[in-house]
Amino acid sequence: MSVPNGGIGEIGPLVLVACSGGGDSMALAEAVAHEQRHASWRAGAVVVDHALQPGSGEVADRVAGWLADLGLDPVEVVRVSVTPDGSGLEAAARDSRYAALADVAERLGAAAVLLGHTLDDQAEQVLLGLVRGSGARSLAGMPSARGLLRRPLLRLTRAECRQSCTAEGVPWWDDPMNEDTDVARVRARRAVADLEADLGPGVVAALGRTADQLREDADHLDALADEAVRSLGAGPWGVEDLAALPRAVRTRVWRRLLVIAGAPAGQVSTRHTEACDALLTRWHGQGPAHVPGGVRVLRRDGRIAVQAGPATEDRARW
Amino acid sequence: MSVPNGGIGEIGPLVLVACSGGGDSMALAEAVAHEQRHASWRAGAVVVDHALQPGSGEVADRVAGWLADLGLDPVEVVRVSVTPDGSGLEAAARDSRYAALADVAERLGAAAVLLGHTLDDQAEQVLLGLVRGSGARSLAGMPSARGLLRRPLLRLTRAECRQSCTAEGVPWWDDPMNEDTDVARVRARRAVADLEADLGPGVVAALGRTADQLREDADHLDALADEAVRSLGAGPWGVEDLAALPRAVRTRVWRRLLVIAGAPAGQVSTRHTEACDALLTRWHGQGPAHVPGGVRVLRRDGRIAVQAGPATEDRARW
Repeated sequence: MSVPNGGIGEIGPLVLVACSGGGDSMALAEAVAHEQRHASWRAGAVVVDHALQPGSGEVADRVAGWLADLGLDPVEVVRVSVTPDGSGLEAAARDSRYAALADVAERLGAAAVLLGHTLDDQAEQVLLGLVRGSGARSLAGMPSARGLLRRPLLRLTRAECRQSCTAEGVPWWDDPMNEDTDVARVRARRAVADLEADLGPGVVAALGRTADQLREDADHLDALADEAVRSLGAGPWGVEDLAALPRAVRTRVWRRLLVIAGAPAGQVSTRHTEACDALLTRWHGQGPAHVPGGVRVLRRDGRIAVQAGPATEDRARW
Repeated sequence: MSVPNGGIGEIGPLVLVACSGGGDSMALAEAVAHEQRHASWRAGAVVVDHALQPGSGEVADRVAGWLADLGLDPVEVVRVSVTPDGSGLEAAARDSRYAALADVAERLGAAAVLLGHTLDDQAEQVLLGLVRGSGARSLAGMPSARGLLRRPLLRLTRAECRQSCTAEGVPWWDDPMNEDTDVARVRARRAVADLEADLGPGVVAALGRTADQLREDADHLDALADEAVRSLGAGPWGVEDLAALPRAVRTRVWRRLLVIAGAPAGQVSTRHTEACDALLTRWHGQGPAHVPGGVRVLRRDGRIAVQAGPATEDRARW
């Protein structure tokens, strides 16, 4: 398999493949090892051992052996400790993994870290975003490049990666976690398969295209919202100034104003931004909108204020 | 059941319910008949007979009887003829139905036509748009108001409508077409049920929220694209002027420029706008991008032209 879209052509001396030993990242490792022979860069690999299952250390070592056999050098195994917080085990594992990849990349001076996410992963990501129902950004899936990270397989299917491994005689390992329906990602995989059965075989590609388009939409609308927040300056703000913003920008501006005031970004939902917006659009003298993190949004005398911390008599009078 | 969101409160003398006799529109008819008793407007109904199944005329007459029993007046049965064109039978039936509703509304001087689409219909609409993979507008579902049309049930589920009919002793009719898996809408219904089983019971509501948010995004980005097209004026245009537009706006500008030049709107796909965009972003001296309707897009000497009709030597030189 050759890596499509040339994403790793001219990006410097050391490129790292992040490899779980699954069919996707092993196909990626093989393709990168192949390209390396004619390239001006050299390729290494990182295997992250999440230490969540018994024997995970041996699996990681075996995968590292496969990668060395492919000609990747250096190959590092990094053991991380995963401490689930409020967002669950999957999110904690992902955070630990990305932090470990960033550490290794910095230590080795790597110019890029390649991830084996495929079109199927992208489709699953879009469906998971759809279920959150929180707008374009959550439907925008994974970008093909962000910081040092590159995802050169986003236009290839999981089946194509498996076929490539088989054709090239590359071993891979099927993680039993991939069958665990407690894992959201696994349920999303089943959901994509069901959608294909119900609505036709083009679903995966359509979800991928949707992600690309909505990412562009979200990028531009986010940029407009950032600009609007800058030009609004410090509050309180006139009701007319906020109401003059188009809704698509204004909901994003509310989110920013709330987070700036101290609301935890992960806890601000549509319900909260709608309550704020009602102070503009459905004003009937209602009380403040209450937002996580002890943030309150009030309207008085034609002006809107966002307040954090305990309400005091003084602040209530602004 | 009372109609939520007060959408029909102050819209004039005659309000028409478009009723198929199904559980959703019968629940709507009952709610409207109930509200009418205390309102300054009066309510009638329209039953569209698509004449696609044997006995459809009798069904329509029976439904009209139910509606008259509820106290709606006038109740009109309109028989339409459905001629499938390239877009298929469902699309043709929908076009005939909306045209008939508009005719009746005009003839009776109605101030609004109420449709019984529910949150479930909206969720199905979003999934069908997702499968097309053609961006925010196709995921934006059905608006709650457009022209004379109103959809006051978009926040209620199909089950709630059925429950309301049962509670109020209102009869309804299950269209056998609703079980016909050749119909895209029916497959979408099954897909939504599968998604709920795979990913949890919040899916329908999340799809509805997604539609609302993406409609706002699409409205604003479409407005920005219209503005950009106006300020670009007649072509040819400088490559830098087009390239300076953000991608989310530019793909929409391409679509408009192509349609203005005569490309059929329904046939312009992402593939075509991407081929046009490549003239800006991946320029290597390639030939024109060819678009349905005989439209060509060319780059020469740092300028982009959109041409329709046969290529001539003269036009090739601009």
